[in-house]
Amino acid sequence: MSHKLCMIPGPVEFDPHVLDAMATPATSHVDPAFINAFGSAIELTRQVFLSPTGQPIIVSGSGTLTWDMTASNLIEPGEKALVINTGIFGNWFAECLQVYGAKVTQLTAPFGDQPSIDAIKQALKNDQFKLITITHVDTSTGVLVNVQKVAQAVKEVSPNTLIAVDGVCSVAAEEIRMDEWGLDVVMTASQKAIGVPPGLALMVVSQRALTAFKSRKAAPTTYFGSFAKWIPIMQKYEARQPSYFATPPVQLILALETSLKQLVDRGMDLRFKKHIDASDKVKAAIERMGLKLVPVKREYAANTLSAVYYPENVAPADFLKCFTAAGVVVAGGLHPDYNTKYFRIGHMNVSATEPENGHLDKVIAAMESAVKSTKVA
Amino acid sequence: MSHKLCMIPGPVEFDPHVLDAMATPATSHVDPAFINAFGSAIELTRQVFLSPTGQPIIVSGSGTLTWDMTASNLIEPGEKALVINTGIFGNWFAECLQVYGAKVTQLTAPFGDQPSIDAIKQALKNDQFKLITITHVDTSTGVLVNVQKVAQAVKEVSPNTLIAVDGVCSVAAEEIRMDEWGLDVVMTASQKAIGVPPGLALMVVSQRALTAFKSRKAAPTTYFGSFAKWIPIMQKYEARQPSYFATPPVQLILALETSLKQLVDRGMDLRFKKHIDASDKVKAAIERMGLKLVPVKREYAANTLSAVYYPENVAPADFLKCFTAAGVVVAGGLHPDYNTKYFRIGHMNVSATEPENGHLDKVIAAMESAVKSTKVA
Repeated sequence: MSHKLCMIPGPVEFDPHVLDAMATPATSHVDPAFINAFGSAIELTRQVFLSPTGQPIIVSGSGTLTWDMTASNLIEPGEKALVINTGIFGNWFAECLQVYGAKVTQLTAPFGDQPSIDAIKQALKNDQFKLITITHVDTSTGVLVNVQKVAQAVKEVSPNTLIAVDGVCSVAAEEIRMDEWGLDVVMTASQKAIGVPPGLALMVVSQRALTAFKSRKAAPTTYFGSFAKWIPIMQKYEARQPSYFATPPVQLILALETSLKQLVDRGMDLRFKKHIDASDKVKAAIERMGLKLVPVKREYAANTLSAVYYPENVAPADFLKCFTAAGVVVAGGLHPDYNTKYFRIGHMNVSATEPENGHLDKVIAAMESAVKSTKVA
Repeated sequence: MSHKLCMIPGPVEFDPHVLDAMATPATSHVDPAFINAFGSAIELTRQVFLSPTGQPIIVSGSGTLTWDMTASNLIEPGEKALVINTGIFGNWFAECLQVYGAKVTQLTAPFGDQPSIDAIKQALKNDQFKLITITHVDTSTGVLVNVQKVAQAVKEVSPNTLIAVDGVCSVAAEEIRMDEWGLDVVMTASQKAIGVPPGLALMVVSQRALTAFKSRKAAPTTYFGSFAKWIPIMQKYEARQPSYFATPPVQLILALETSLKQLVDRGMDLRFKKHIDASDKVKAAIERMGLKLVPVKREYAANTLSAVYYPENVAPADFLKCFTAAGVVVAGGLHPDYNTKYFRIGHMNVSATEPENGHLDKVIAAMESAVKSTKVA
């Protein structure tokens, strides 16, 4: 398979040492060297999520599985959840919560917009919610929610409500300070800013959420996603002891430890800043070319991707073929009502943190040629 | 991490081309080349499971997740399931079924033994079961169940009962002819005889089981494991069309396609025979050394692993250190009541099918030195 530069909002381009770890020969899941690497990955996860007190859970799966784990373990049938919906991933998280019996209220913003803090406060006053979910960056719209402000609002109006953040397209790129902001669950997947091929579901759960979990009345209807099964396993690996519930994905965990070590060594604050710089560079180019972002305000636009409307009267296929010609892969729209109206460029991980590799320049040049070649005379 | 020969019952040793595929650089999950590889992997899965009519489902996860998917999609709360229990994986599958509301009856054999066909028939006469589960090879005991005979008994006594086979430690090594034997669900994971690093849950579901699924009254309480979500995705990839529910583990799927292609090209019948030959070689050595297998009859012993009692009055640590000294990794016991009584040697995938690589000779030599050095005078 010949390689094309992968500038979609995940999977992202990977560091070569991370890819090397993926090809590690067969290794027992209870080999001392692997136990040590998994234990280290768990510790590093806490540092990346800025949650010294949280409980990391790392399992085979995708970001979607972390929704199931949140919904099944933290919600009992009939309990209420408030979903801050800024795109299709909000719709889907709401659907997932309902599967596990939650009564869901959605605050849904128009395409590219987000609910105001006042609207969120009002919703929290109108009803008593066990859980609020926030999609930090909705990958379908490129909308970034100010999680810190939403969390403050929740603490102010409904302090007992658990705060769950879908950080699939944000963790390890957008600033997120789990403990400081008082978040209860932060979820992500490996193939985005964490910088590891797809196949891992990662989450950190607060002690407060674990207390809520332990005091539930009905048993959760999940086995593979059970906190009660996984947390002792995580604790054992972290204590560098062998343990078994289901076979961990050895190679992906080794790749994860390799990537997290790089992230933490280089510093999270610098990493956040580099993602802002990369995003600024791409968005400046978008503006220069007269293109329009999907997020309705500049401060609503994520730093991990840019969702951009096609120029008017231009066929998506004509526009996108210029990227193909340049050997760059970008993503189409991912929202049933607007699929053909916009495209998405991912700028995460090495593409953002090592601009000297030219990934940003290459995707900007491809976009420039797409704009020029499709210009309506 | 220095490599030790991995002779445990999964993860197994991998073919170098499979490991190379694990290190494939970032690739979009809707890249035409990837769509084609995933489509091909789905088609090849049918050939490996010998199920021309079944529906393959391949997702990020482990073998355990396939239990959840079977239990949540095919059992409604209150429906009855019969578990043929030949080891700890039987206990756990029963627990998983109960989590999703099944009323479970277990036919539990003593350690190393298995329920007789007559006992199974009697249980099926005593009650009406929606589903029967069979662990083809229980990795904790090394006991092999004759799935064909059990399936015949089910067809004879209770033809409407769905037959679900946990083939985690059997598929692609032990003979299993899904369609011919009339099986409804066959489950496995990537890290055993399929020959791919851990991280994939694989299953094939019969059209009969899908009909049962479609006629259920209550919605399943699973989102990530939902047949209704995944089957359209599998059908799209097989039709070589892009589709999205959750990001597939691109590198693992590429590794899977690489491995399955090798398996199918070389022929499944030859593969089954090579696993028997490898097992015979290891078991002949075990017998020659005066050691005793855990399975109570030779015909109950799996071809994918050998579960072997330590010599009497020998400390496990003393025995196992000879393997460590030889650079070979084997597994301890995995059954709470017998943990310290036995060990397990896996002989799957390239270790079985390419005996010229010397894996079997190496593990046999290590066992020989362990027996000699721990011999009580």
